[in-house]
Amino acid sequence: MNARDYARNLAEEAKKASRILAAIPTERKNRALLATAELLKAGEKEIAEANRRDLEAGGKAGLSAALLDRLRITPPRLGEMCRGLEQVAGLPDPVGKIIDERTRPNGLLIRRVRVPLGVVCVIYESRPNVTIDSAGLCLKSGNAAILRGGKEALNSNGALAAIMQRALRETGLPPDAVKLVSVADRAVVGELVTLDRFIDVIITRGGESLIRAVAAEATVPVIKHYKGVCHVYVAASADPEMALEIADNAKTQRPAVCNAMETLLVDSAIAPMFLPRLRKRMERKKVELRGCPRTREILPGVKEATEDDWYAEYLDLILAVRVVDGAAAAIEHIAAYGSNHSDAIVTRDDSEARLFTERVDSAAVYVNASTRFTDGGEFGLGAEIGISTDKLHARGPMGLEELTTYKWVIWGNGQIRENSQ
Amino acid sequence: MNARDYARNLAEEAKKASRILAAIPTERKNRALLATAELLKAGEKEIAEANRRDLEAGGKAGLSAALLDRLRITPPRLGEMCRGLEQVAGLPDPVGKIIDERTRPNGLLIRRVRVPLGVVCVIYESRPNVTIDSAGLCLKSGNAAILRGGKEALNSNGALAAIMQRALRETGLPPDAVKLVSVADRAVVGELVTLDRFIDVIITRGGESLIRAVAAEATVPVIKHYKGVCHVYVAASADPEMALEIADNAKTQRPAVCNAMETLLVDSAIAPMFLPRLRKRMERKKVELRGCPRTREILPGVKEATEDDWYAEYLDLILAVRVVDGAAAAIEHIAAYGSNHSDAIVTRDDSEARLFTERVDSAAVYVNASTRFTDGGEFGLGAEIGISTDKLHARGPMGLEELTTYKWVIWGNGQIRENSQ
Repeated sequence: MNARDYARNLAEEAKKASRILAAIPTERKNRALLATAELLKAGEKEIAEANRRDLEAGGKAGLSAALLDRLRITPPRLGEMCRGLEQVAGLPDPVGKIIDERTRPNGLLIRRVRVPLGVVCVIYESRPNVTIDSAGLCLKSGNAAILRGGKEALNSNGALAAIMQRALRETGLPPDAVKLVSVADRAVVGELVTLDRFIDVIITRGGESLIRAVAAEATVPVIKHYKGVCHVYVAASADPEMALEIADNAKTQRPAVCNAMETLLVDSAIAPMFLPRLRKRMERKKVELRGCPRTREILPGVKEATEDDWYAEYLDLILAVRVVDGAAAAIEHIAAYGSNHSDAIVTRDDSEARLFTERVDSAAVYVNASTRFTDGGEFGLGAEIGISTDKLHARGPMGLEELTTYKWVIWGNGQIRENSQ
Repeated sequence: MNARDYARNLAEEAKKASRILAAIPTERKNRALLATAELLKAGEKEIAEANRRDLEAGGKAGLSAALLDRLRITPPRLGEMCRGLEQVAGLPDPVGKIIDERTRPNGLLIRRVRVPLGVVCVIYESRPNVTIDSAGLCLKSGNAAILRGGKEALNSNGALAAIMQRALRETGLPPDAVKLVSVADRAVVGELVTLDRFIDVIITRGGESLIRAVAAEATVPVIKHYKGVCHVYVAASADPEMALEIADNAKTQRPAVCNAMETLLVDSAIAPMFLPRLRKRMERKKVELRGCPRTREILPGVKEATEDDWYAEYLDLILAVRVVDGAAAAIEHIAAYGSNHSDAIVTRDDSEARLFTERVDSAAVYVNASTRFTDGGEFGLGAEIGISTDKLHARGPMGLEELTTYKWVIWGNGQIRENSQ
């Protein structure tokens, strides 16, 4: 089958399944989620075998040790997938929730009711757990899922998706509710992203180049974030000890993720006292600093930051540092160079904090906390299918509710429109 | 100035204004809205003069009488614009509203807060009142507006926008909060729709070809509806008198609008009794019927409906009629041919009504009421900037709330992330 027919078949089957899924009661969706967890535990050997084939092929193909590690399904990682499904089963079902309701003077009862989006296509890279995590969230929110993982994980994803489809079948739900793109052909993605008749949204998880490629071709709406150039601004009134802990955590706790800090902004009033302590801490953590001229006056020997550094998402133990005059200047810097992801202020001045939260136009704005908390679990959503730096539909971590839309349901008793508008 | 520079300047200025506007308190936005209404009343002559120039040019260019009528700003129409502004001033301000808040076990206070989208670009056709209506809604919701109306209304729109900018200036708000594209060059639109760095959303109001052209070129997200192929399904248990009134209203009260009915589905059990009464009523209203074979058996002489008729948005006194067997078949027809806009069932059977509301995947689903009610005012939103048949962000009539997004604002006292995820 060619890429076009393959993609269209997949999408049509998913659309059909989504129409059944939309009306399935919560209890039955939960049963399918728990059955998947059970079958995953029982299928540990079959999964390990499929994963071994991917790891072997990846080793031969010269994948880096880091990539091979991401690809590996260890027993604890399989356990996490199962726990994730059990957690999602325990979360409230957004579908059917009445968002608001009103009775109009003419007697019409007008309700907005949450409904699934329909078909959600998730495009991601190497980690196979995304297959189960995404499929679980889509199922719970009543959506059919089309999953397209990295080609290096094809066997692993195939084993995981097959088990979930078995669980759907065994619990009486349509197995087409979870469709895996099981061929590596990149052309299939190109076809999928234009099937707006069947697919309601694309969620991308992965590097910026993957996401830009998808967004450029897609006619289906894409929810995405390109990158996370996150800032911490240390205000004049900051508790320096707290600022140091937050900067350290935001930079070093897990530098390769999108909510890690890339640029530290320091108020000029506190910089002479603060920056030397920062340097000491960062040296200990093996973080390379790149500073603006004023930073380098205080910290001689620090490498010079170029214009490119302010835009950079290092995802590594590198930190750009800039001295600014006041919150307004920090806000300007973030508006000019930021990625609207996560930005923090450290301050003891509440009105300055409020100004910062109002003026910084990012998905998440923090006062006296690390940017690393931008995450569905940490925000109390229970789970997340991705993070959006878009402004429409969903912003920041996306959980079950963000996988739904609403419809207007209007009950009348014969009302007709009288005026001429 | 070439189209690219013109569009970019406009968008940059609007973006700057939007950052100021986002923090303006409700009271000051209301004052500017009311000042605009006052100045519009005072400027009646200047507006009439500009409108006269458009009407003259339009007459010479051979615009149809219907188009010229749409273009005309009569004193009552100007009065309606002013009343619209006053109404919008009276509506609650969505900006700053806390959507939800929670305190996490680690003490983080996590809030979702409504904020403006930023810069909203509205692309529309001939009616100049859209200029004031859209600018008013954008202002109240804290957004800067870029307005691009039809070229035949350039003078009228210019006079209206100039008055609103004067009101902004007089009340101390940035006049760049309302920018009008004051040149007819189509290339400017082509540039605007790709300025995703400055423009946050495009809202299109107009015919399908305009909207498709914008959506095809845009990298800025577009909220839209292409067309309204709305259905009324008359179930076996329908009150025939009510069905007749609803069908008449949905088809004839204002046939040229998107929420008018285009196809009537009639259950086979009621068709022999209902269709002859329908024909009589529709003949009186000068509506041409086009029927499926079963319709034509009951109503000999009715023109045959082709496959194209089921997809057609007539926007005229034409009605496609199909006999179907039960609600499931009606739902299938709507899924196959509908436009996800507004669809109604007429029935006395509550469980059938519930099935219909659950299974029909449209922005608005009606029980025993006319599809003509899909409208922000009729739904109690106070006003509307457009109707969306998309699923992301907003569905159905869009009011002030749909012109906002949210941000996550997190207050801590030094929290850092401990686990390794």
